[in-house]
Amino acid sequence: MTIYLDNAATSHPKPEMVYQAVNEVLRNVGANPGRSGHRLSLKAEHYLTQTRQSLARLLDIPDPQRIVFTANATESINLGLKGLLKAGDGVITSSMEHNSVMRPLRFLESKGILVKVVPCDLKGRIKVSEIKKAIDPKTRLIVLTQASNVTGGLMPVAEAAELARQKGILMMADAAQTAGLIPLSLKEMPIDLLAAPGHKGLMGPQGTGFLVIGPEVNLRPLKEGGTGSRSEEEIQPDFLPDQMESGTLNTPGLAGLGAGVEFILRQGLSSIREKEVSLSRMVWEGLRKIKAVELYGPEEAGERIAVVSFTIKGLNPNLVASILDTAYDIAVRAGLHCAALAHRTLGTFPEGTVRVSPGFFNREGEMEDLIRAVSEIAGKV
Amino acid sequence: MTIYLDNAATSHPKPEMVYQAVNEVLRNVGANPGRSGHRLSLKAEHYLTQTRQSLARLLDIPDPQRIVFTANATESINLGLKGLLKAGDGVITSSMEHNSVMRPLRFLESKGILVKVVPCDLKGRIKVSEIKKAIDPKTRLIVLTQASNVTGGLMPVAEAAELARQKGILMMADAAQTAGLIPLSLKEMPIDLLAAPGHKGLMGPQGTGFLVIGPEVNLRPLKEGGTGSRSEEEIQPDFLPDQMESGTLNTPGLAGLGAGVEFILRQGLSSIREKEVSLSRMVWEGLRKIKAVELYGPEEAGERIAVVSFTIKGLNPNLVASILDTAYDIAVRAGLHCAALAHRTLGTFPEGTVRVSPGFFNREGEMEDLIRAVSEIAGKV
Repeated sequence: MTIYLDNAATSHPKPEMVYQAVNEVLRNVGANPGRSGHRLSLKAEHYLTQTRQSLARLLDIPDPQRIVFTANATESINLGLKGLLKAGDGVITSSMEHNSVMRPLRFLESKGILVKVVPCDLKGRIKVSEIKKAIDPKTRLIVLTQASNVTGGLMPVAEAAELARQKGILMMADAAQTAGLIPLSLKEMPIDLLAAPGHKGLMGPQGTGFLVIGPEVNLRPLKEGGTGSRSEEEIQPDFLPDQMESGTLNTPGLAGLGAGVEFILRQGLSSIREKEVSLSRMVWEGLRKIKAVELYGPEEAGERIAVVSFTIKGLNPNLVASILDTAYDIAVRAGLHCAALAHRTLGTFPEGTVRVSPGFFNREGEMEDLIRAVSEIAGKV
Repeated sequence: MTIYLDNAATSHPKPEMVYQAVNEVLRNVGANPGRSGHRLSLKAEHYLTQTRQSLARLLDIPDPQRIVFTANATESINLGLKGLLKAGDGVITSSMEHNSVMRPLRFLESKGILVKVVPCDLKGRIKVSEIKKAIDPKTRLIVLTQASNVTGGLMPVAEAAELARQKGILMMADAAQTAGLIPLSLKEMPIDLLAAPGHKGLMGPQGTGFLVIGPEVNLRPLKEGGTGSRSEEEIQPDFLPDQMESGTLNTPGLAGLGAGVEFILRQGLSSIREKEVSLSRMVWEGLRKIKAVELYGPEEAGERIAVVSFTIKGLNPNLVASILDTAYDIAVRAGLHCAALAHRTLGTFPEGTVRVSPGFFNREGEMEDLIRAVSEIAGKV
């Protein structure tokens, strides 16, 4: 049985109720949500409503109608950035961002948007005072990941959001690595745009994600099309969520996401967090004792999500991951993790690191197996 | 047991192998396709490759790498139109298009793209000679649905594609209602952009779709982000399919789509078509005998996909659909079907029609039940 330690890419396995929700909708509902008006269609719509409500409860979102469903966090980020920024606008980000933020920003830069990247330290940490210094009269938005997908290090999103509010600019948080894993309250944190995937910490299936659009924000949609609403008009409806949800949604996937969120609500986010902190601390403590191993990012497990990035001196990270996979049946991810700039920051470019990301369903014994395996590999160098 | 006659919205039920593929990937694969390099990840990637290959076989697509996966046909159409057209370009379409075409076009019009809508006749038919007349030196693209989602009427996509080729302009086909149902060969038809959903005729789950990008076409992506390829670069990779597939794909859904396409390949598209033509002819013949019923679109079932649109004189179509749903447990769709312009063409705006769309898994007895139900409803007016 594979030891799956790649939960930062996609959480696996999912709670049983996620599989069941997907299967139930696929087999026994089937219809298009809402639009068709018959009972199967209303049932499909009901699943979407439930998922919006569960997300609103988990993330303390004032208005579930301002949650718009997407295919993944990347789409959510593209929608937020491209829907908001115009030529001449300034945007500030960190040097620890994923390509899902950096690539749309580099594209927008080519269209006249002014992009400032605030450098982080060697452990990938950013100072809010540095973000503050970067703000100028053109700045319209701060976009920041809530946790690095390379080191797992938590970023000061709440403080940056407060700063943005004070300065009268907008705040976008990339919760790709944190939604479902780290407490988040949109009622308490002045985050204007929150982008998240469904298939990571929220335990839903791949092909799901969402963007929460704050009450102060008007975005242009990324896609126009059929929404089942105002069908008499050839222009896109201007109300949420319909404005952003053209085309048939991934109903079975979103029903699965609802079940994943429901599982988290029942389990309690803090018990999930506790378990993950404990596993992640075990990995860090175990690996640090191995002589040839170098670890990256903040040392304290409380300052990280359950991600540990390491290298073995003299061995290419891809080779290490490949040995773990084929000789030990342990699945981890190596390389740049779609975040080249983060690796430049950490000094691990271009080879990257080996990333271990346990999840709620992993066991302590599996961490011991991993540590033993890395120790054996390192011993052979 | 509900009689589901809303297959033009989403086909339901799906072949058993579709449910099984989704379940298998969700439960036993789980990982992100490709990117992570470990065996579960390669297995996930393998499912995507299989789906691309099956689609290539079914639609006779020369290069499977030029199939890019999307969330639905609406996204495919947005990607095709917005990725191609620039201010000053002209585009020609018909008056029978879905809002998935009309709304992006109306948006593009506001950005300086020149949109010409060629009117169709009262049965929703278009003359290629009219399209030809509309071509001017600015025209860059013809976009045409292969079959109306309102009347089911087939449109002359092959002829329009030939015309486009002769005139040195590009052709985009919206195969939302035809992929998996009507023979299509991209080797034989000079279609440059083919947009399709996975969840209708192709029998896959909702949340899947694709765009086939011809060898002559370079598109700008709709979204940038992590692709798992060229991670060292902050700009989007420029090769297909990666350029257009940022963010984690809907792997379980796409595996399900692969199974749906496989089912069609095994069953034979022509046997599916035959069954649907026969059901659709039964519905038309049965309904035409009811005095108060008016039918829309081409009479001959061979000139339609399995869609029959009707009204009952003196009754609002929504009311008819609602009675069918609640009193007879028959699921159909009423209203404008996200295609206002089509209803203006047919003279059924703003109330729309009742749309009956049987699928491969419907039985003749169910058509009889529908006809009896409509007859009873009409008898009470």
